[in-house]
Amino acid sequence: MAQFINTKEALVTEAIEGTLHTSRGQLARLDGFPHIKVVLRNDWDKSKVALVSGGGSGHEPAHVGYVGKGMLTAAVCGDVFASPSVDAVLAGILAVSGPSGCLLIVKNYTGDRLNFGLAAERARAYGIKVAMVIVDDDIALPDLPQARGVAGTLFVHKIAGALAEAGADLETISVAAMRVIDNVCSIGMSLDTCTVPGSPKEARIEAGKAELGLGIHGESGVELVDFVGARDAMLLVLERLKRHVVKAPVVALLNNLGGTTPLEMSILTEELVKSNIVEGIQYLVGPASMMTSLDMRGFSVSLMSVSQDDLDLLQAPVTMASWPGCIALESPVIKPIPDGLTPITPIPSSDPDTARFIKHCCDIFIEAESVLNALDAQSGDGDTGSTLAGASRALIDAIPRLPQADLTQLYRAIGLELSQTMGGSSGVLLAIFFSAVGDAASGGQTNVQALKAGLARVQEVGGAQLGDRTMVDSLTPALDALPDGFAAAAKAARTGAEITSDILKAKAGRASYISEERLKGHNDPGAEAVALLFESLADR
Amino acid sequence: MAQFINTKEALVTEAIEGTLHTSRGQLARLDGFPHIKVVLRNDWDKSKVALVSGGGSGHEPAHVGYVGKGMLTAAVCGDVFASPSVDAVLAGILAVSGPSGCLLIVKNYTGDRLNFGLAAERARAYGIKVAMVIVDDDIALPDLPQARGVAGTLFVHKIAGALAEAGADLETISVAAMRVIDNVCSIGMSLDTCTVPGSPKEARIEAGKAELGLGIHGESGVELVDFVGARDAMLLVLERLKRHVVKAPVVALLNNLGGTTPLEMSILTEELVKSNIVEGIQYLVGPASMMTSLDMRGFSVSLMSVSQDDLDLLQAPVTMASWPGCIALESPVIKPIPDGLTPITPIPSSDPDTARFIKHCCDIFIEAESVLNALDAQSGDGDTGSTLAGASRALIDAIPRLPQADLTQLYRAIGLELSQTMGGSSGVLLAIFFSAVGDAASGGQTNVQALKAGLARVQEVGGAQLGDRTMVDSLTPALDALPDGFAAAAKAARTGAEITSDILKAKAGRASYISEERLKGHNDPGAEAVALLFESLADR
Repeated sequence: MAQFINTKEALVTEAIEGTLHTSRGQLARLDGFPHIKVVLRNDWDKSKVALVSGGGSGHEPAHVGYVGKGMLTAAVCGDVFASPSVDAVLAGILAVSGPSGCLLIVKNYTGDRLNFGLAAERARAYGIKVAMVIVDDDIALPDLPQARGVAGTLFVHKIAGALAEAGADLETISVAAMRVIDNVCSIGMSLDTCTVPGSPKEARIEAGKAELGLGIHGESGVELVDFVGARDAMLLVLERLKRHVVKAPVVALLNNLGGTTPLEMSILTEELVKSNIVEGIQYLVGPASMMTSLDMRGFSVSLMSVSQDDLDLLQAPVTMASWPGCIALESPVIKPIPDGLTPITPIPSSDPDTARFIKHCCDIFIEAESVLNALDAQSGDGDTGSTLAGASRALIDAIPRLPQADLTQLYRAIGLELSQTMGGSSGVLLAIFFSAVGDAASGGQTNVQALKAGLARVQEVGGAQLGDRTMVDSLTPALDALPDGFAAAAKAARTGAEITSDILKAKAGRASYISEERLKGHNDPGAEAVALLFESLADR
Repeated sequence: MAQFINTKEALVTEAIEGTLHTSRGQLARLDGFPHIKVVLRNDWDKSKVALVSGGGSGHEPAHVGYVGKGMLTAAVCGDVFASPSVDAVLAGILAVSGPSGCLLIVKNYTGDRLNFGLAAERARAYGIKVAMVIVDDDIALPDLPQARGVAGTLFVHKIAGALAEAGADLETISVAAMRVIDNVCSIGMSLDTCTVPGSPKEARIEAGKAELGLGIHGESGVELVDFVGARDAMLLVLERLKRHVVKAPVVALLNNLGGTTPLEMSILTEELVKSNIVEGIQYLVGPASMMTSLDMRGFSVSLMSVSQDDLDLLQAPVTMASWPGCIALESPVIKPIPDGLTPITPIPSSDPDTARFIKHCCDIFIEAESVLNALDAQSGDGDTGSTLAGASRALIDAIPRLPQADLTQLYRAIGLELSQTMGGSSGVLLAIFFSAVGDAASGGQTNVQALKAGLARVQEVGGAQLGDRTMVDSLTPALDALPDGFAAAAKAARTGAEITSDILKAKAGRASYISEERLKGHNDPGAEAVALLFESLADR
């Protein structure tokens, strides 16, 4: 699969440059591209203990995204999934270490251990105090003492970072970091492999399966398990973590491995919160992409039993957006639905003239059903006539319960009836038309003014302008002429409807997708319906 | 492709619940699941103008992620890519609208226009002041007056939100929103289609191609273009946007459509900043996932010419993490590489005994090459002998330039030589060993103490414990016995080496991946090398 990169070789350096442009001046990098890719705090004065982490790239926002006040001092970046060189790590250590020394936070992968380890030796030869902790939070391989370092590393970054920011010494921070490492466990699950830039994608996981206990460098999961859904996935992950958790309260870190959508992550959050497998999960870091594996559609959960001190450190403020905070889980606040959703049923009233008028209008549309359908077949799906006729039949049935004697209420009631019985866009538009007419009429406007206000609202919502080959093209001139009577309105509507047969480029509604050849010579069915209505009213 | 959902029907409600758990109590939802999916500010007192937006789900963090102080008051959510119902929108309006009224911010899709439009009518019938603006920022189809609403909507949310928070009235906010809409243009590009939950993925875009001018609901792009790389992709997008931009300064909004990795987004940022196609891009919102299309591997750029007032509103603080801020673009800060990367070349000195001793040790390893290779063939890749012999030959060549007369410097110098000439993990580990020995020796420790300190550091970095079937198993007892002379050390080393042939479960190094059958009866080659060394030194 293609990716938005230029070359595989330059991708990490280009990405770092891009990141620096938007760092608000808080980050800098060392000269030394392409071999030395070190991002560091721009405000660093070496007065406190420096925290240096890093490793292969492809785990963004780790690690550059965690460089800043309260977390890392520098991140040393390798190429994708490749450890940085000894020189790069050494450059990072030398650039940020002052008299207080430096803690290296290393994920347990051989390359990182060795390169960070040798860099530490070389820094020590200069008299720099360097300590190193190795994060091994992955529990996927329970018998392997060399567990991998995965997303639980974030807990180390945050707690060590808060301590360093508060001015703790190297020994205190190292001891705390090791305590965190002892207390953190993680496991991940994935539905698809990641796509390594420049390499073909390995479609390894068959349909209906998921990998449990994956690494973050494309390593296969330890187990191939059946995948049923989000709930079972989360329960399985928590079941595996359970025996590694010492006591409540527990902070869970829910990490997006890169390619999982926010919708899915929110559902996984809900499942995590609802489950009772691990007792005492009271805080959450995430859901967020924190330690990713490129575009892997997967997630990991890290759990840590915390003291109040740990919590305070996890909740200490930081400047970078990549740390989502450590949030106390809360029950959703649910508010009652407001009154007014059920429309007020109008009080029926009787006015024989009005009832007859409505019936007459409806009969016109019922009679015109096949003519309008045929016109619509030229520009749409051939159902304008049936839609109008169906709504008309329903409205005839509704006449007895309409507030016939109260014109304002009547318009609104017709709008309500149409919104409930007439499907599709036209139903909604006619409902809007009559509701808006009712509003305007209740505001004291004349009938014609009110009808025009309704048309304006329909145009606002539907987006149709005069000349767009819609019913607007006949209704607009008809309403303009209506003060002169139905005959004048009918004539104007007819002229407007005929003009639509020459509008070959429809700009709104479904006709905008139809070729000019098919439209030519046929009136728009909506405009025609309006013309037929006024013509019939003029003849009445 | 499978997704972390439970059922297609429940996915939006479950995701909303998950989001509320982590909202720090700032969000609430209306009762009325599953049909009414409305998320609103929990601290809302209706004293200011309410802003309501929403639409189909699948665009997260839009719209729920933008509900909060300074942006939206409520988000009305439909199912994936489906407009919410009139009732749902009305519920949202009624729940948050007070005397100051309500502005509906609607993206230009027919379903949203109609449902928000009719809901507005029904709310107006209750006397609520409702205004509606329709965002149509997409420039993909230049001839279509009904342009779609895409990520540029974020500008409307932010500017209208900041005005509402500051207490502006509905008219002022509506006018400002319409001005923003007139000023914003957007276009997107995608390398792959999105995966709609419950539907098979449409693999529509062939290799080497990209869709330009896509919609955010899986609609095909307007053009299928050749895809060369990130640079050309960004240049093409900016070229299309250029003629829609009125004047500098310009804010660019760089949106991840969902499935693009942070690495790629950073590279696109770099390309956007470096390009000169649109003049005056001085500020950036993002890169971030703001208006996504599920998991689509794509991006969009929205541009807006801004006044200082606009900038102030865009930069006004908000509480939600989904808004990435509007950042002034800066040139990357580049700091010089620190001194000390080039190791200090030791000053050569002469000590014939030391030189002979080093030569003797090296000769032992050169002589043992084939024996050690044969052992390693049982547990690794058969090159331990060659690696040691090669390093020994190089070290013999280096003897004349070593500081033979200064033991502390000599250890460090040997470490340096090995780090430069010996490949693989063992080279790094031996370099760490000798560097650490040199450090300890410079600290005044005895030779044996210093050697033990080196071993401890190697174990820390390499992770091997006694009994893990490594050289540690012979070197540890040898150093323990060394105060009693080389003969005692040799005997202890031999015993340790022989024990490794019975250690069938290697726990560190490559042998940990080898079956017990292959390991049985063979000494670990590293342990054997140590034993051979001490035996030879004892015989010397």
